[in-house]
Amino acid sequence: MSFNTFGKIFRFTTWGESHGPAIGCVVDGCPPDIKITEKDIQIELNKRKPGQSKFTTQRKEDDKVNVLSGVFEGKTTGAPISMIIYNKDMRSRDYETIKNKFRPGHADYTYFKKYGIRDYRGGGRQSARETASRVAAGAIAKKVLENKLGKKYKAIGAVTQLGILGCDTKNWNDNLINKNPFFCPDKSILKLWEKYLLGIRKSGSSCGATIEIRVRGVPVGLGAPIYSKLDMDLASAMMSINAVKGVNIGSGMNSAFLTGEENSDEIVQKGKHPIFKSNNAGGILGGISSGQEIIVSFAVKPTSSILISRKTIDKFGKNTSISVKGRHDPCVGIRAVPIGEAMAHCVILDHYLMNKAQCGK
Amino acid sequence: MSFNTFGKIFRFTTWGESHGPAIGCVVDGCPPDIKITEKDIQIELNKRKPGQSKFTTQRKEDDKVNVLSGVFEGKTTGAPISMIIYNKDMRSRDYETIKNKFRPGHADYTYFKKYGIRDYRGGGRQSARETASRVAAGAIAKKVLENKLGKKYKAIGAVTQLGILGCDTKNWNDNLINKNPFFCPDKSILKLWEKYLLGIRKSGSSCGATIEIRVRGVPVGLGAPIYSKLDMDLASAMMSINAVKGVNIGSGMNSAFLTGEENSDEIVQKGKHPIFKSNNAGGILGGISSGQEIIVSFAVKPTSSILISRKTIDKFGKNTSISVKGRHDPCVGIRAVPIGEAMAHCVILDHYLMNKAQCGK
Amino acid sequence: MSFNTFGKIFRFTTWGESHGPAIGCVVDGCPPDIKITEKDIQIELNKRKPGQSKFTTQRKEDDKVNVLSGVFEGKTTGAPISMIIYNKDMRSRDYETIKNKFRPGHADYTYFKKYGIRDYRGGGRQSARETASRVAAGAIAKKVLENKLGKKYKAIGAVTQLGILGCDTKNWNDNLINKNPFFCPDKSILKLWEKYLLGIRKSGSSCGATIEIRVRGVPVGLGAPIYSKLDMDLASAMMSINAVKGVNIGSGMNSAFLTGEENSDEIVQKGKHPIFKSNNAGGILGGISSGQEIIVSFAVKPTSSILISRKTIDKFGKNTSISVKGRHDPCVGIRAVPIGEAMAHCVILDHYLMNKAQCGK
Amino acid sequence: MSFNTFGKIFRFTTWGESHGPAIGCVVDGCPPDIKITEKDIQIELNKRKPGQSKFTTQRKEDDKVNVLSGVFEGKTTGAPISMIIYNKDMRSRDYETIKNKFRPGHADYTYFKKYGIRDYRGGGRQSARETASRVAAGAIAKKVLENKLGKKYKAIGAVTQLGILGCDTKNWNDNLINKNPFFCPDKSILKLWEKYLLGIRKSGSSCGATIEIRVRGVPVGLGAPIYSKLDMDLASAMMSINAVKGVNIGSGMNSAFLTGEENSDEIVQKGKHPIFKSNNAGGILGGISSGQEIIVSFAVKPTSSILISRKTIDKFGKNTSISVKGRHDPCVGIRAVPIGEAMAHCVILDHYLMNKAQCGK
Repeated sequence: MSFNTFGKIFRFTTWGESHGPAIGCVVDGCPPDIKITEKDIQIELNKRKPGQSKFTTQRKEDDKVNVLSGVFEGKTTGAPISMIIYNKDMRSRDYETIKNKFRPGHADYTYFKKYGIRDYRGGGRQSARETASRVAAGAIAKKVLENKLGKKYKAIGAVTQLGILGCDTKNWNDNLINKNPFFCPDKSILKLWEKYLLGIRKSGSSCGATIEIRVRGVPVGLGAPIYSKLDMDLASAMMSINAVKGVNIGSGMNSAFLTGEENSDEIVQKGKHPIFKSNNAGGILGGISSGQEIIVSFAVKPTSSILISRKTIDKFGKNTSISVKGRHDPCVGIRAVPIGEAMAHCVILDHYLMNKAQCGK
Repeated sequence: MSFNTFGKIFRFTTWGESHGPAIGCVVDGCPPDIKITEKDIQIELNKRKPGQSKFTTQRKEDDKVNVLSGVFEGKTTGAPISMIIYNKDMRSRDYETIKNKFRPGHADYTYFKKYGIRDYRGGGRQSARETASRVAAGAIAKKVLENKLGKKYKAIGAVTQLGILGCDTKNWNDNLINKNPFFCPDKSILKLWEKYLLGIRKSGSSCGATIEIRVRGVPVGLGAPIYSKLDMDLASAMMSINAVKGVNIGSGMNSAFLTGEENSDEIVQKGKHPIFKSNNAGGILGGISSGQEIIVSFAVKPTSSILISRKTIDKFGKNTSISVKGRHDPCVGIRAVPIGEAMAHCVILDHYLMNKAQCGK
Repeated sequence: MSFNTFGKIFRFTTWGESHGPAIGCVVDGCPPDIKITEKDIQIELNKRKPGQSKFTTQRKEDDKVNVLSGVFEGKTTGAPISMIIYNKDMRSRDYETIKNKFRPGHADYTYFKKYGIRDYRGGGRQSARETASRVAAGAIAKKVLENKLGKKYKAIGAVTQLGILGCDTKNWNDNLINKNPFFCPDKSILKLWEKYLLGIRKSGSSCGATIEIRVRGVPVGLGAPIYSKLDMDLASAMMSINAVKGVNIGSGMNSAFLTGEENSDEIVQKGKHPIFKSNNAGGILGGISSGQEIIVSFAVKPTSSILISRKTIDKFGKNTSISVKGRHDPCVGIRAVPIGEAMAHCVILDHYLMNKAQCGK
Repeated sequence: MSFNTFGKIFRFTTWGESHGPAIGCVVDGCPPDIKITEKDIQIELNKRKPGQSKFTTQRKEDDKVNVLSGVFEGKTTGAPISMIIYNKDMRSRDYETIKNKFRPGHADYTYFKKYGIRDYRGGGRQSARETASRVAAGAIAKKVLENKLGKKYKAIGAVTQLGILGCDTKNWNDNLINKNPFFCPDKSILKLWEKYLLGIRKSGSSCGATIEIRVRGVPVGLGAPIYSKLDMDLASAMMSINAVKGVNIGSGMNSAFLTGEENSDEIVQKGKHPIFKSNNAGGILGGISSGQEIIVSFAVKPTSSILISRKTIDKFGKNTSISVKGRHDPCVGIRAVPIGEAMAHCVILDHYLMNKAQCGK
């Protein structure tokens, strides 16, 4: 059972509400003797932080992380690492007017029906603010993996589809991604995306997005049959992110359209190493990493909180309408990039440790 | 940790290899006092059974299930239910010639690298033969859910895309699905699919498919934040099925293309009940069922074992080629329909029990 | 895997070191809509708090708990409950002199060997300070159980053996227990214990203790075969407390000496209810509660930190000796009483929820 | 959740009833490439087998194990190992007369109340017949540990108390243990035990026993704080065995009587290795193995099924009496020796793998 815990050996438990005093997470199962500083974690959190451009919510949060345990004299001790981020820019009053209404596309209705109680302030626990905790956990996983696998290990994500406008992944450029407000990997589409998203924002609407995460430097052999497949756990990880509705590994949903000879990746020996001639598998065969680049992508639905009026009901069962005036992202998908990276780090590390347990020398 | 176990409260553990003496599973956490017979399980197994039409592998397996424990005088006792299916039509000799070769698109290479040992007979543990065990577990979950939720509960799957040919889901007809060899829900495409798949088979190739599972009669409130979301567990369940490369909930990957007003499902009160005006959410909001039909779809890649010759290497690192002459499905996706249904039953029951634990009266 | 997490459905994860900035825990799986205040938790913490009499360590800690999440408008929401207790009276300098020495009877040596790194300040993570977090979690479990089972539910613990001096459990008096510094249930031994423990303290030594926990108002049917037996989980819970070396259920280790007719508790029907004529079983049969009082007892070894000089080695493998001058309890067993109660609450609630899941109506 | 599953990484799931067609278990997480034969498992099962002397039940069971999966060409493959043992000598008719009565000291009453259904044939799932499955799992764990730790690894158990007669553990002789029907380690008490137990049997009574398990060759560093302590998991493992009511680690319950200087084991350096001058800790400090011999002991209550008439009730709430005439052990504790060894192997291996995962190089 793991309502608020993710992972098997490297596990993290998150807590906190959007408008409570703080959010945080506890990372357990971390190998000892790994160098880690608050700054390492802050760098990752800053990528996800709101209010950094006109294309994300104007809520201002420092998202400053404090490490309360598990690190001694700059190194992990093997004990649980507790991290806390205080909430600062909470305007719960924004939510007073919609206190009794269920926002369409949000979990207001289902939470209320399930728990019989609802923290209406910014969605409470359902808020994507929880994802900051994952990014903190992911920052630790990343440090461990860099320590164990070396600098060849890297997970990098980008937005590849912004509403109706897809980028050309053949133009993928790592260096571009963190230098534009969209985590866009393709220079040729950048201007168009800017115009498009400004239009979306001005109209009070929102749009969906596709995020692709590429993980390099993963050795062959991570993953485990049958119910701990690497792709299964990656799908699970990505689908757990707020607003995600679909997950692909390699050619993903597209593989339905292919024939066997188009899809299966041929293998040839080049010197000491086998080379795959294509990567429809997304780096995973039979649930186990093949040593190729791991490719996972996922779709984030458009922000449900929009200015445009929508029909809904209130908690007394009355018909009403709603138009959400709080501070929201015109495309929440953008900020999902560092979250997807963080989840990838956590899954890869978890499987690295699992493999060491069962098959390690 | 759950290498070969699926679920949290309602859990099943599968075991067995494609060409070993038997396969089976142990179902744990099943509520007591539920009527169940071997026939109930056999009905579901028969849907998945190979050799039923020219469109599936010609391996002949009765797939006859024996229940060895956990049922007394026709009812579940709450003790673990052990089920066994003996393998009969094993032709391990078929695999002698490819004993040292890694079949492209299969897990031969990754299993060998991970475990340092490989059961080459039909893929051993990686074989999709394992999925018979899931179908058996799913049959039990189905009986429990029908007992707890009544006959309004139903999970029904169909093939909606066969290679390049998609059906029109507006024509979805439950009654058609089990009456054709493709689990096709749309009468208008049936003939075309038959021709197309015969062509694929004759050419020694194979094709992918998309399967859609619809679950009705699920009450509002199943699922749990944050890392036991219902959609997360469904994605995990479907991605664990052999050859699955993508999973969608509701509008899925397509939600990237939508705007907020197109995507979020408006709610209106009709008498005592809220009605959603659309179902892009696929029946799940914030990881919790909304009471709408749950819609999950997934893509199955084309069968990797094909007659067409493919480049590969052997376990000594030598370049070679392979063309697989064993008995295989031209489209493995077809037989994934009852497997997807089974996994849906298991996930829904697991969440039903979890919800009862935390939020039940 | 659950390095720092306890429980199956009602789960808590603890974190923090003896001399770090804070300790805390995250409680997950708590049913919603349960009234809970910080005061409810503080009452339990105060029972365990150090520095309350001359018979416990003179470290002064308020042990003031802050609830950071999971409670909204005075009620649990079903979301994780994060609690934090700041450390105040840390004198890490006390530990400078023994920084490189392994204290006999402590985990200094094993932690160092396992993790290759050691937080020497008060034992770091091995410190019994961690148990404050359990008491906080137990306070919540208690509130839930009182809500679900009514006021007839009660778990009460006492010290029944203090070093060589056992009390007479026939004199057990609930009302006495919280009114003396030993959690002694038997008035006739009180004076003797006081004298005895003063002697122990003055001599710079320490003594062990036995604690007995009695749980009333538990319905028949909690517990589960085979590897979630109620007694197994109680044993596990108690053995996880620092310095505990033995656990008994009912007649416990003593049952080895009995014959079948002495040991098995006869049953007679009294009106509508079965009555057991004795309680050697300690309220648990086949791992499942029988409706009788549940009795679990455990031994706490004497405090290992004593003034008397002991032989040991340092981390460079040199022979040396040690005599610990920090602030310590002459009998740590005393403060284990509220901890044992807390663990009992947590186990009972966990099994209450598990039973509801599998066998609930 | 783990109703019928034990372990974290090395996990086994047992199934089957006393009078069903078979019992069995599935071992998961076993490292690959370990030599194992059915004979290796059978040797351990034979130690537990009933009907081997006049001091155990006269039920005749071959307890012949079949390995159905997970082993290929004599070696483990990393896939789940399914083992089955068919029941042969079932005399369910023996149980017809007590079909509606609850046997005192057994789980008849609690199972019936919990599940609302009861397999009365020999106790169904509550029967100690389940323990054969554990012995099979333990045999595999033993092989893995011998492979990983070498032949210095050994777990050996013995009966140290038989009813009122304790042996002198100073006379412990490994070689004697498997050469007498009591698993007695002390030659000086053997004759007395024989006379005593014959008397017990003739009188239609039964007696309890204490079993001690000693594990040698365990490296320092196995175990994990806080809720995966090695002693906690050993306590849990032993308490899960039928009829066990108390568990001690090292000086166990006796540690309550000791002073700090009597109890804490001094350390001295001898050449390259630290030596502990005593072993009150039972080889475990802070939940982590110290490299000393691990000592765990547990009490098994006297067989509850006796010839002597006992008061009880039936399932209709009527007072009645019972005297059990089936085939039973005068002291079930004796056959608990190989079970305790098996559980020790499983716990040690599980922690060996866990340690490799988190702290391995």
